[in-house]
Amino acid sequence: MTQYRLTSLASSLPASVPFVGPEAQERARGKIFDARLGANENVFGPSPRAIKAMAETSIWKYGDPESFDLREALAGHHGTTPAHVVVGEGIDGLLGYVVRLMVEPGDAVVTSDGAYPTFNYHVAGFGGTLHKVPYRDDHEDPEALFAKAAEVKAKLVYLANPDNPMGSYHTGAEIVAAMDKLPNGTLLVLDEAYIECAPKDAALPLLFDDPRVIRMRTFSKVYGLAGARVGYALAAPDLIAQFEKVRNHFGMNRAAQAGALEALGDGDWLRSVQARIVAARLRIATIAKANGLRALPSATNFVTIDCGRDGSFATRVLAETVARGIFARMPLAAPQNRCIRVSCGTPADLELFAQVLPEALRAAENS
Amino acid sequence: MTQYRLTSLASSLPASVPFVGPEAQERARGKIFDARLGANENVFGPSPRAIKAMAETSIWKYGDPESFDLREALAGHHGTTPAHVVVGEGIDGLLGYVVRLMVEPGDAVVTSDGAYPTFNYHVAGFGGTLHKVPYRDDHEDPEALFAKAAEVKAKLVYLANPDNPMGSYHTGAEIVAAMDKLPNGTLLVLDEAYIECAPKDAALPLLFDDPRVIRMRTFSKVYGLAGARVGYALAAPDLIAQFEKVRNHFGMNRAAQAGALEALGDGDWLRSVQARIVAARLRIATIAKANGLRALPSATNFVTIDCGRDGSFATRVLAETVARGIFARMPLAAPQNRCIRVSCGTPADLELFAQVLPEALRAAENS
Repeated sequence: MTQYRLTSLASSLPASVPFVGPEAQERARGKIFDARLGANENVFGPSPRAIKAMAETSIWKYGDPESFDLREALAGHHGTTPAHVVVGEGIDGLLGYVVRLMVEPGDAVVTSDGAYPTFNYHVAGFGGTLHKVPYRDDHEDPEALFAKAAEVKAKLVYLANPDNPMGSYHTGAEIVAAMDKLPNGTLLVLDEAYIECAPKDAALPLLFDDPRVIRMRTFSKVYGLAGARVGYALAAPDLIAQFEKVRNHFGMNRAAQAGALEALGDGDWLRSVQARIVAARLRIATIAKANGLRALPSATNFVTIDCGRDGSFATRVLAETVARGIFARMPLAAPQNRCIRVSCGTPADLELFAQVLPEALRAAENS
Repeated sequence: MTQYRLTSLASSLPASVPFVGPEAQERARGKIFDARLGANENVFGPSPRAIKAMAETSIWKYGDPESFDLREALAGHHGTTPAHVVVGEGIDGLLGYVVRLMVEPGDAVVTSDGAYPTFNYHVAGFGGTLHKVPYRDDHEDPEALFAKAAEVKAKLVYLANPDNPMGSYHTGAEIVAAMDKLPNGTLLVLDEAYIECAPKDAALPLLFDDPRVIRMRTFSKVYGLAGARVGYALAAPDLIAQFEKVRNHFGMNRAAQAGALEALGDGDWLRSVQARIVAARLRIATIAKANGLRALPSATNFVTIDCGRDGSFATRVLAETVARGIFARMPLAAPQNRCIRVSCGTPADLELFAQVLPEALRAAENS
């Protein structure tokens, strides 16, 4: 017999992994990737000020469980108060907390078919029932999401804006208009991981006190600190206060707290990264076009390329690209899975991609 | 109305904080502490190799979700396999996962009265019912813990060896002997955060495959990486595999993974820290004796000092010590709360403590 006794919920869960990491793929292929363009990391890295602050941190000390300095700075940055901000171990960690607070077995949750798998992992992990709505024209469909939420009396509805994996976005005004149909008792979990890459009109024109929405932000993308694990959520104080009940109070890395604080303060670096992302998006689109493919418009730090056929073909294109040393990924749900997804790389990364893509396409056509 | 709907469990939870951090105390007093001796951090810091590895990490990359290299190294270090090892965000994070896997509302869990509050926080957070057993002669009492586990049909029983906050320990052989009474269906969660400070005979003479126990280890204490948040658990592979169902797969800081790997490999640094801890323990005991107090024997990186009266007196001694710029803590349950707890500091830290303690005692006596 086993000595331990799982909960009935834990017994029922698969030993699932939201994503296999690039390191596991590297171990399987026996060599590291030449370009790492699959996880929408920021290859341009964080602000040098952040790197310096992390190196100078007394890492023998636990982090401040209140992330006080960082929350103060974030409040100032967003023109709100620290009571509107909770800092956590990336958006992944914060999504886990919000699901834990709201979802128990049988509760309904709504998302798009093909949206963020880690959110789905958390919902399943707390016994929620996931209802999915299809994308519309490669965009998430707020009207359909909120209508579904009303239909199933969802506790949570997940919407990423800009969206991953399609790179598309809605204006904040469009989302607010759609929110007229958001039912009472459904909280909108708005994942804004890529908001700093998006046009200004992507911002939600709502007070952080609005009780209908919690906004998730991260230092993993434009701020270049994916490995540091710093995310935060913005919402009304009474909702933010709920996180105190369940979060891992001493879970934040002290150097990461210091690095995020400096990254937030270095607007010049942020703008230089934004410019390099714009240039990289253009370069990826040019490469796609040169190969007879269409790059979808991107409001993120990646570009989704329509390979022009079905999911089977795109899967082969991706496999042939990966086999040639470029880590990339692709959307998982049809019909978005006709595409591959390429993160904004350095000019050298993208030169390599320009060399590899024609070969990968030929190999995919012949396989 | 509020838009969000908490689970019934989340509604019932207090917005509790296991500990108030020293930074919050510093903000309240308006200046930083002169000596930080309250959180059993390692003031001697991590291996310089670990510091170098962290500084050289490409922090723009997510960490390897499998912590493959670190788990391989830990397996080698302990003479076992990576399948016996799970890495997580400190022991705090791993305790949260093990409680989540096993405990649902109404399930019984056993611990000692006055033992680790964060474990209790997790148990409450998943709706478990906590049953407490008193310390015996300032030691945790394995026989009583396991008897209580049998009585209440506990799913988990928590035992720290060496113990925090008393600094005492049992030999591994004593614990194994007591485990004859560990009931079927109760998993022993053995918190060995301080094991590297303890005499050799504290080690549990059991295979990691033994299904009755999961051992929790950390890089936060002797390895000097509290701020990095790296812990691990050792147990039979089928139990370790359960963590894949619930853990935050991309939750590990990439620099922390690299730092822990180097720290583990630097045995010379480890031994130098161990020697400095032994010296600091002796120095704290000498200071206690010079003030007419008794230092309890310590198998950890802190010393618990018996202030010789009741909890009210020790509370005043602690407050007067803290007011004089030394961050320290004390046990929370009677009769252990007749003591204060002082982490091993640098010689300069302890010189300050030697100056402050007589003043604090006088002030406590007169207040």
